[in-house]
Amino acid sequence: MDERVREHARVLVDWSARVEPGDNVVLSVGPDAHELAVAVAEVLGERGATLHGSYRSGEVSRAYLNAHEGEFAPPAHEQALFEAADVYLSLGGERNASAMADVPGERRQAYRRAVQEVREARFDTRWVSTVHPTRSLAQRANMSYEEYQAFAYDAILRDWEALAEEMAQLKTILDDGSTVRLVKSGMELVMEIENRTAINSAASVAYDSHNLPSGEVFTAPSAVEGEVIFDIPMTLEGEPVRDVHLVFEDSTVVDYDAAQGEAVLEEILETDAGARRLGELGIGMNRGIDRYTNTILFDEKMSETVHLALGRAYDACLPAGEQGNESAVHVDLLTDMSEDARLEVDGTVLQRDGFFRWEDGFNG
Amino acid sequence: MDERVREHARVLVDWSARVEPGDNVVLSVGPDAHELAVAVAEVLGERGATLHGSYRSGEVSRAYLNAHEGEFAPPAHEQALFEAADVYLSLGGERNASAMADVPGERRQAYRRAVQEVREARFDTRWVSTVHPTRSLAQRANMSYEEYQAFAYDAILRDWEALAEEMAQLKTILDDGSTVRLVKSGMELVMEIENRTAINSAASVAYDSHNLPSGEVFTAPSAVEGEVIFDIPMTLEGEPVRDVHLVFEDSTVVDYDAAQGEAVLEEILETDAGARRLGELGIGMNRGIDRYTNTILFDEKMSETVHLALGRAYDACLPAGEQGNESAVHVDLLTDMSEDARLEVDGTVLQRDGFFRWEDGFNG
Repeated sequence: MDERVREHARVLVDWSARVEPGDNVVLSVGPDAHELAVAVAEVLGERGATLHGSYRSGEVSRAYLNAHEGEFAPPAHEQALFEAADVYLSLGGERNASAMADVPGERRQAYRRAVQEVREARFDTRWVSTVHPTRSLAQRANMSYEEYQAFAYDAILRDWEALAEEMAQLKTILDDGSTVRLVKSGMELVMEIENRTAINSAASVAYDSHNLPSGEVFTAPSAVEGEVIFDIPMTLEGEPVRDVHLVFEDSTVVDYDAAQGEAVLEEILETDAGARRLGELGIGMNRGIDRYTNTILFDEKMSETVHLALGRAYDACLPAGEQGNESAVHVDLLTDMSEDARLEVDGTVLQRDGFFRWEDGFNG
Repeated sequence: MDERVREHARVLVDWSARVEPGDNVVLSVGPDAHELAVAVAEVLGERGATLHGSYRSGEVSRAYLNAHEGEFAPPAHEQALFEAADVYLSLGGERNASAMADVPGERRQAYRRAVQEVREARFDTRWVSTVHPTRSLAQRANMSYEEYQAFAYDAILRDWEALAEEMAQLKTILDDGSTVRLVKSGMELVMEIENRTAINSAASVAYDSHNLPSGEVFTAPSAVEGEVIFDIPMTLEGEPVRDVHLVFEDSTVVDYDAAQGEAVLEEILETDAGARRLGELGIGMNRGIDRYTNTILFDEKMSETVHLALGRAYDACLPAGEQGNESAVHVDLLTDMSEDARLEVDGTVLQRDGFFRWEDGFNG
């Protein structure tokens, strides 16, 4: 077995999920994630955790959803499983990332409603999502398999402790700050973040962070004014989307256009009232992720980028008792900050042309 | 998708497990059983059942078991899953049927002890075990893949209703009978079956039958005397075993030998006191299974064979309140009844040279 697979498993179990002896672990395995599952099972055995393997496949879900008429009954057995679980590890690995392309949106939504309590029980565990680098993901990234493996492991096998320390600096600045300004040719966006708490997303449940790889600092803006351009391409609901342009007035999107995929954008914005407001401002900090690969798990942590999410805000960013933006969606959109761009907090430049103020190369 | 896969799925869900709307179903998927899982998910969707996919892989189990030191904690979350489940469908499908060959016996036994309550909860559901015909099983059967597929589907896609009717005749004879005698060159074995109930194992939970394919009638003998030769080859604990010869006195094995694999046989017989007694007499009735393929799920249902199991008896064969043979093992051994052999019940020939008394070709 590739030593990087074993190392991925150790990072996932020890750094990310903090598995302890006796933990009841659900290990969700995608059809092409078998090799990583074997490596993770070995580490779980060493740690003395228990293990239930679950199987998650887009093709199985598609077959089930498309054949099912009417309302879905909640899967009470799956809920019992997660309620008794301590840890949930999801090893994504599809053979075809578009396996669910022909499942109608209403069918997916009806199922999402039926499994809402299951999802909540899952989120109540120490859950971590990762992916096994597959040929399908390589294809999606327009890369050869070996090239993609090198890319993915560079993103996953970071010195997480060192990155967590670096990100802590940014968290402190955002926690203490009141106003964030993004400035670039053709855009200027001002976001209020007073009293909001930034998350140091260091790929570990110990940091309220549930993705591996991670490497971003994010918060939830309370007010937004101005214009923004998302110049990093995206795939949303299976459709390519390019150069999204949004205009905010009074924290709400009042105008929008896109060079490609405007219909998908419109559909997202029309979901509900919260879909026209921002739920997240995220700043990519993972220097292992140096290019766009068309998979949000990696893209949103890309260094020298900022992402904003339309829709739902994370509770962890909000003061106790305060309600954040509510929505059925949470859609991340990305902006390249590597050239002719700056990010200011309370009038001071924090990042210019991709360099943070504490980095060599920063030109304040 | 091969239409036989879809038909396999329908037989499994409708005939075998009798799935109803709202049933909570656990679908256990082996690494190479994905295609069957997709077909089963579609039928479960049509029936309006819920679905939790579980993953069972010899390689994952091996990695976990071999890495784990000391006693295993019971997986409370998996137990909660099965306690809330109505149906358990196991789709076996390994890429390497010998994946667990180097897991020490003590490790497996320690794990079996830890999951005993989980296993009981699983057996309390409407459970059915089947396999997806894989290249690994084809290799084990010494057959090409296409040839093996044809063989396996011929065994699985029977007219189960018709076979259940035929097997009902045999069940009646065994239920009414007192003494079974197996006679062949070099062997004569006499088994008492008075007051025991035969199971018409017609591949459906409606018949107390939990294998697909099935096609056997079995009961639990209460007393055994004589000698028997098992001339159909077997693989036991990963070792080839040939021509096992057992001598019973007072229902207990008092002498034994084998042309190959005698050490494995000895290990089995030494497990506990019950391992030296018979727990099952089974009569193969599936004419779709016309040859030995080195997989017990198929072999023990082969027409023109009889199998006897050392070890544990099934409760369903016993009168209420009576304890059957108890043991940690249940090991099936097979005898060819197609030539110069007869099976008598209370002195009347029931089967001679492979033909039952109600069949054309029977020569009483």
